[in-house]
Amino acid sequence: MYTISSKLLEDAVNELARLPGIGRKTALRMALHLLNCTVEEVSTFGATISKMRNEIIYCRICGNISEHEICGICADVRRDHSVACVVEDIRDVMAIEQTGQYQGVYHVLGGIISPMEGIGPQHINIERLIERVAAGSIREIIFALPTTIEGDTTNFFLFKKLNGYPVRLTMIARGISVGDELEHTDEVTLGRSIVNRTPYESFLKHK
Amino acid sequence: MYTISSKLLEDAVNELARLPGIGRKTALRMALHLLNCTVEEVSTFGATISKMRNEIIYCRICGNISEHEICGICADVRRDHSVACVVEDIRDVMAIEQTGQYQGVYHVLGGIISPMEGIGPQHINIERLIERVAAGSIREIIFALPTTIEGDTTNFFLFKKLNGYPVRLTMIARGISVGDELEHTDEVTLGRSIVNRTPYESFLKHK
Repeated sequence: MYTISSKLLEDAVNELARLPGIGRKTALRMALHLLNCTVEEVSTFGATISKMRNEIIYCRICGNISEHEICGICADVRRDHSVACVVEDIRDVMAIEQTGQYQGVYHVLGGIISPMEGIGPQHINIERLIERVAAGSIREIIFALPTTIEGDTTNFFLFKKLNGYPVRLTMIARGISVGDELEHTDEVTLGRSIVNRTPYESFLKHK
Repeated sequence: MYTISSKLLEDAVNELARLPGIGRKTALRMALHLLNCTVEEVSTFGATISKMRNEIIYCRICGNISEHEICGICADVRRDHSVACVVEDIRDVMAIEQTGQYQGVYHVLGGIISPMEGIGPQHINIERLIERVAAGSIREIIFALPTTIEGDTTNFFLFKKLNGYPVRLTMIARGISVGDELEHTDEVTLGRSIVNRTPYESFLKHK
């Protein structure tokens, strides 16, 4: 990587390189782009990001981002508050909302258990989930965590914690992606999709 | 792309997505990362970038970025001010400085002629180059622009403009990259490298 002769540019590159997935070379390209923008544009850029950080709050109930104490989904009386879908982060809420297939509410953990990255159960929003279940209004918890070792670990931890409560615990279906060829599917997924086969009538119903 | 329910987050994603090479999905990932940073970190992030934009100035002589009216290279009396290397942007200055092989000064165009992108000669720092040459202290101009159609067009435009002046016009060597296999080199480069072959002794000398 090049030596940057200007301290001002160097500082800006260092800040941009802290963004996820951005190396110093890309950060330099970004900094030079920002140098070519007007003073107003750059000032709006910084102010908009600061405003987001300062004003966004997290829903007191589910942990989703919100502009009020309770998020739009938790405040929506038309949604089914007896079903809560447990997700890793806000992007998963967006992804599920995008499908238009889910009418329940959410619980955003803000991470998953990952001993490799030093993230334990105490670092994520689990305590509040137990409280919500203990309060008694939730009838079903849907685990919608990543299909990774960390996701499975977190699912199992939640299962152990919630097992005593009168709540149905389900998990989103794992199987062949719609549009995928069988020959290109990994063998674990393919094997499980045979073991966990579903009645054909239910496919016809939801088609 | 997902619908973002928060206006604050949406605005921040839109700002980040204006950075070069950043799509909305990456911008969302960045915004969520910044949401997880402390208020101080995010405020430093914005302030550092604004400070760079507000305080960096361009060298009055060569167009390089600078914190003073004249950049460190143009102000350095040990450098050869009779040779000026014409480059597209500041990154090229950094790349050439990094080699440690060049002792002359620079001229940063701030772009190259690109009719496709609507960039004409009047949009880049050419007028000032003509003035520098006309002032008479420059003995050699080295064209170090990209080896693309746009680079070649700009080289030719500069050649036509500077041809009448008593200045030597040279171009950085084009040929096989050091470490490359001949069979993997494109045929235009390989063909030209045969036509423009250099004496073996000069290779031995610079090895």
